[in-house]
Amino acid sequence: MSKDRAIPHDFEGEELESVFVGRRDGAARPTVVLIPTVMGVSELEKGFGRQLVELGYNALVADLFGTKFRGASRDTMFGELNRLKSDRAALLRRMRHVLELARGQSEVQSDQIVVAGYCFGGMCALDLARSGADIRAAVSFHGLFDPPGLPAQKITAKVVAYHGWDDPMVPPDKVVALGHELTAAGSDWQIHAYGNVAHGFTNPNAHEIGIDGVAYNALAAERSWTSFINLLEEVFG
Amino acid sequence: MSKDRAIPHDFEGEELESVFVGRRDGAARPTVVLIPTVMGVSELEKGFGRQLVELGYNALVADLFGTKFRGASRDTMFGELNRLKSDRAALLRRMRHVLELARGQSEVQSDQIVVAGYCFGGMCALDLARSGADIRAAVSFHGLFDPPGLPAQKITAKVVAYHGWDDPMVPPDKVVALGHELTAAGSDWQIHAYGNVAHGFTNPNAHEIGIDGVAYNALAAERSWTSFINLLEEVFG
Repeated sequence: MSKDRAIPHDFEGEELESVFVGRRDGAARPTVVLIPTVMGVSELEKGFGRQLVELGYNALVADLFGTKFRGASRDTMFGELNRLKSDRAALLRRMRHVLELARGQSEVQSDQIVVAGYCFGGMCALDLARSGADIRAAVSFHGLFDPPGLPAQKITAKVVAYHGWDDPMVPPDKVVALGHELTAAGSDWQIHAYGNVAHGFTNPNAHEIGIDGVAYNALAAERSWTSFINLLEEVFG
Repeated sequence: MSKDRAIPHDFEGEELESVFVGRRDGAARPTVVLIPTVMGVSELEKGFGRQLVELGYNALVADLFGTKFRGASRDTMFGELNRLKSDRAALLRRMRHVLELARGQSEVQSDQIVVAGYCFGGMCALDLARSGADIRAAVSFHGLFDPPGLPAQKITAKVVAYHGWDDPMVPPDKVVALGHELTAAGSDWQIHAYGNVAHGFTNPNAHEIGIDGVAYNALAAERSWTSFINLLEEVFG
């Protein structure tokens, strides 16, 4: 049913390779740009992409880290995460590059794009919305909420954050702060908080990362996915 | 398609009249007990009940205030609300009475009951869950979160609260407190917060109540209803 296509691209001299997941007919469709976790492009995100294709959308799984980090260790990837997170203006340029890459694909309806990310990728999706990017929605699955410290812009994208209440990286005060920030930016936003749910809840292999407070939760994974599909129906109509 | 049936009942000497909304065939089905706002049983809740009947469930719209308050003024009803809210143990007895009333109807599958309430009724639904009541889920639409001050019980019901972030009756610290309370009680809980949304968002006539911070929001009404239907599919399977 679906077909993967590697898309090599270059961002400020780094070699990246994103993966387009779409139907074989190549028709232009509403598209979800999926921003992976700290571990980079993996079967997890490609699998989510294939589910979206079954529902009539296309997906682009974005590479933010570069081909030289494929298969790198957890420690190496966390080092890269911290490098990218330490310069949020540069990270935003990277996200804009990914968005333009998506818009440039013939299978992508360029005004029908939702950006959704996981963990670190959730923060990246939020940052794109915070920048005023012209996307239909930005969605965070167990993402980080830390504000980018860049000048505030009017947020035109709908924003939804699916959040595990026991996520040690995002305690309740950061949830409240995100609400205030998004309201101040004029956003149409939602935060869905799940009790007794940790960080990384959409990833069946989350325990392999070996960090306390990171765990899969099948119920939260299903609830957030169902809500996400409802959102796509709302925005892509 | 659906049929309304008035059910007179008596609680500690007060005459109440709830309304059962079900299919004409009279078959036992999973049932949602709807707890109205401070204004008591109205066309709003009966309309929600009819939508549930279309989806294959039954509904019971519960009268908490009594027949003598039908058509009473807003001020009178707020007086009654404060009276009921001032004794949460008595209010819980009233809610248990309503639950037993529902269980006693031949059209109600007695182990397939969800209790959902609006505003004050949302608090009543939460109170029932907090008491350890054997119900499948308790759902609050723009409900009050104030804890009842009764001995904590293990919560076996799933709990979902749909909350307008700008609700002046439920500021963010009460949202955070509810999360902590529900986690401590062992509940499988969700709180869905909606940005730029006031109290009373499911009620198209909310503005008639003439209170700042109380307003209908069509998008939040639709989102919460869609999520509620997803929940019913989850628990009634």
